Amino acid sequence: MVEIRYDVLGIGNAIVDVLVAAEDAFLDEHGLVKGAMTLIDAERAEQLYAKMGAGTESSGGSAANTVAGVAALGGRACFIGKVRDDQLGSIFAHDIRAVGVDFHSIPATGGASTARCLIVVTPDAKRTMNTFLGACIELGPEDVDEDLIAASAITYLEGYLWDPPGAKEAFIKAVGAARAAGRKVALSLSDSFCVERHREEFLDLVQHHVDILFANEQEITSLYQADSFDAAMQAVRGHCEIAALTRSEKGAVIVTDDEFHIIDAEPIDQVIDTTGAGDVYAAGFLTGLAEGRSLPECGRMAGIAAAEVISHMGARAETDLKTLMKEKLG
Amino acid sequence: MVEIRYDVLGIGNAIVDVLVAAEDAFLDEHGLVKGAMTLIDAERAEQLYAKMGAGTESSGGSAANTVAGVAALGGRACFIGKVRDDQLGSIFAHDIRAVGVDFHSIPATGGASTARCLIVVTPDAKRTMNTFLGACIELGPEDVDEDLIAASAITYLEGYLWDPPGAKEAFIKAVGAARAAGRKVALSLSDSFCVERHREEFLDLVQHHVDILFANEQEITSLYQADSFDAAMQAVRGHCEIAALTRSEKGAVIVTDDEFHIIDAEPIDQVIDTTGAGDVYAAGFLTGLAEGRSLPECGRMAGIAAAEVISHMGARAETDLKTLMKEKLG
Repeated sequence: MVEIRYDVLGIGNAIVDVLVAAEDAFLDEHGLVKGAMTLIDAERAEQLYAKMGAGTESSGGSAANTVAGVAALGGRACFIGKVRDDQLGSIFAHDIRAVGVDFHSIPATGGASTARCLIVVTPDAKRTMNTFLGACIELGPEDVDEDLIAASAITYLEGYLWDPPGAKEAFIKAVGAARAAGRKVALSLSDSFCVERHREEFLDLVQHHVDILFANEQEITSLYQADSFDAAMQAVRGHCEIAALTRSEKGAVIVTDDEFHIIDAEPIDQVIDTTGAGDVYAAGFLTGLAEGRSLPECGRMAGIAAAEVISHMGARAETDLKTLMKEKLG
Repeated sequence: MVEIRYDVLGIGNAIVDVLVAAEDAFLDEHGLVKGAMTLIDAERAEQLYAKMGAGTESSGGSAANTVAGVAALGGRACFIGKVRDDQLGSIFAHDIRAVGVDFHSIPATGGASTARCLIVVTPDAKRTMNTFLGACIELGPEDVDEDLIAASAITYLEGYLWDPPGAKEAFIKAVGAARAAGRKVALSLSDSFCVERHREEFLDLVQHHVDILFANEQEITSLYQADSFDAAMQAVRGHCEIAALTRSEKGAVIVTDDEFHIIDAEPIDQVIDTTGAGDVYAAGFLTGLAEGRSLPECGRMAGIAAAEVISHMGARAETDLKTLMKEKLG
């Protein structure tokens, strides 16, 4: 039996975010679907970037944000993802290591440049994402180290990994390795459009391979093509060990076979930018599990962490999350 | 006589900022002088970056921030500065154009990469800057288009340009071209350590070539090796047409041959990060001049713009400066 060295191993697209504030009219003008993550090619990325205002760059990527959050909360975390050997790739690697996440994936030495996500933040604090996957399409099963999976209590995967073909194979290999080693598998559905692209495969995953599921209201209703949140919640119950279903200002619901918790949303002065909210929610929840906390406590940790991230621009926490948790939870 | 097409032409180092929050202990550990801009080489940049936490990247550079501010305030602005043809260079060019600044400098196709400034922001909101000049050292007189200078009401130069040798020659050519065309020359002393490095040359510039001088208290007292602000202010009077001397929370003093104005600091809830405060102060002041405003009004515009920038992380304005000025000044 391999010794557990990490609480959470994240596998995801390694992306540098470019955040720009804009009015709603900008979305209409450029045919962008508010709140969605749309995949774009290099040419479209160039065109769109040319029309965007001046931005701020910071390391992102859904699962990467989550493991960064786990590390910020004091958990042991590592990450598998693909960058290129270029400037943005170095920035990504620097930033994730700087927050205490182990990251040893070998950068691609050729092919597309490091992925970037052009994020438009509208005045309602919603983010509309346009992802050029770049080097992420180079991620493949050869990047998944089975010993590392076996040494991690939970392997956490983002649904977005289902988009680049090689990453999907890496995803499947990782799930197999985790289950073979008796470890847990966690999945975030990522976004409702991602769910629509891959519904059948996601349903199979959730029913047969996922222990801990993260989804927001849109994602879970899309997955089950349900006409209400409640209907979707009923459907997911029993499909996986734990489902953490988030509903923005309505809080979250944690469902297991025999437990059911409603966690109110953390009070917050003003929502500035929801980028990364779901990612750090998962970080709080998984860190709570690693600390052996009860499910309601895990839910509160998740909500507190998410509230921190949505109260400022940017996808990762700006205040010391460990101190914040001590203040709020004791 | 060439027609005026720009209110302000800025010439400066083209730099991407990497902003990281850290405790004071970090400065001590790494021998960093708080509040100063220190030039570092590629190796030191690598070493320091490796020790820094995760950061946020955004386009910076002192004069570049100023012309970005001028454009944000509705002025006509252009910029001369050197990047490389790499990712950070593209980001710099995108961002400065996205705020409405004309930027046509040809990127270097070889040599060092685009400049970056590793900025450590301590809890007292002070920023400590470590600049790897990179491609900026490629800026030379050949990059200064004399027609562009003649078409600009004011040519604005950052004192930092005196550091890379070729840029200094570009600086001198620009000053000559501006004076030959009957245009104004503005200079920011940049920082007190920069003043110490180049005191004799700066004194000569201020006495003989500069029409509008921007300096904070430390810089002006260093320039004249004065033992009080008042002594330095007396010394600068008459050396250039207008001197705008800033004193943080004590406000600013505007001095000309026959005018003298004390402008109180704009009230502000909390100072978060002073990066870029001096740059946008100059932007407000120069835009006011371009609009034909009185000196006290120019001073207020400058102070309002600076207050906006220090109330958040990052060197450039986040709110619409034109609207802000309309609200505050009418």
